[in-house]
Amino acid sequence: MEKLTEKGSSAVVSRPHDHQDMGVEGYLRGNSSVRTTETLVRIVPMGFCVTAMVMMLKNSQTNDFGSVSYSDLGGFKYLVYANGICAGYSFLSAFFTAVNRPSTIFQTWTFFFFDQAMTYMILAAGALSAEVLYLAENGDAAITWSEACSVFDLFCRKAKMSTVITFATMVCYAVLSLLSSYRLFSNYDAPISFPCNNKGTEMPVFAA
Amino acid sequence: MEKLTEKGSSAVVSRPHDHQDMGVEGYLRGNSSVRTTETLVRIVPMGFCVTAMVMMLKNSQTNDFGSVSYSDLGGFKYLVYANGICAGYSFLSAFFTAVNRPSTIFQTWTFFFFDQAMTYMILAAGALSAEVLYLAENGDAAITWSEACSVFDLFCRKAKMSTVITFATMVCYAVLSLLSSYRLFSNYDAPISFPCNNKGTEMPVFAA
Repeated sequence: MEKLTEKGSSAVVSRPHDHQDMGVEGYLRGNSSVRTTETLVRIVPMGFCVTAMVMMLKNSQTNDFGSVSYSDLGGFKYLVYANGICAGYSFLSAFFTAVNRPSTIFQTWTFFFFDQAMTYMILAAGALSAEVLYLAENGDAAITWSEACSVFDLFCRKAKMSTVITFATMVCYAVLSLLSSYRLFSNYDAPISFPCNNKGTEMPVFAA
Repeated sequence: MEKLTEKGSSAVVSRPHDHQDMGVEGYLRGNSSVRTTETLVRIVPMGFCVTAMVMMLKNSQTNDFGSVSYSDLGGFKYLVYANGICAGYSFLSAFFTAVNRPSTIFQTWTFFFFDQAMTYMILAAGALSAEVLYLAENGDAAITWSEACSVFDLFCRKAKMSTVITFATMVCYAVLSLLSSYRLFSNYDAPISFPCNNKGTEMPVFAA
């Protein structure tokens, strides 16, 4: 991430694996603005997660035909749990980004791992809920499952909104995964020993 | 990927953005073995995809209570399509890897994009099928969906196997995504201007 801020410009910076030695003013200033941006990017999916979770948690309907609640359907329960975990992680990761700690390689790997895991978890939650909604909308004649959304229309509408928001969270996390992949793997070019000649681009490389 | 083969060792290699200039014998030999490994790693999920797809395509059961086929359930149909697309992509990507073309930045981005897309698509397919199976196993009293697996046990068993194989494909693609992320983003360290002094690690960086 640090190197993204230097895109297209020339600046005196430390190598990525020398984060502890970050003593250059320009680098720190750039680093600070990137941290602010990343903190905001991590807060957005937290908002989505909390909205989707609360919307589903409060989702129940009772009428002459009976009553239904989100907790009656496994897919919707998973959506609530997944959004809860994701909101918690989003808050923690935004906090760690905001307090401006030195980026160690361990921290970079941790962010990368959890960003990927959240993307997969929240995508699965969206897919499960979408399948339940599809069956509730259309039923299935072959195995005698009747459609339910004509009876519990308000319930279905709220569940649909919660599912759409969950997919929006998934898009945010796909972007965050991309950023944390960039930050992690762009560290893996060094240490490099550079012979001081001007004959070309070949050089001994010790891959990290 | 090229740099992974040099891990922990010293070898004369070109910078990643100079793939067209790969003239060093040792580098090409290492590159060739990496290509063979990657081709094999890309063929494994192809086998999984074809197995899961064929297993689901042939999945139908008829008994005294009626008949059911994979095509009666949207989630299972999506699983067939997703595995078909994934098998096709796995074959094409294994072929492109095997023919030993130069790795351009466009090709690296293409592999990265499609590896990610396949991971998400195949995870969604597994999740949809798992939800259908969960409902078929347990039913749902609140919206009067009866359980179906006691009546169509053979159908459910085959669908379960196909779903498990789909999740195995997803794991393969998560690993391939990791590799293609590494290959892509480890290219984004340069061009770097290295001052020829021995005073420390600080140096001007022009991020790619």
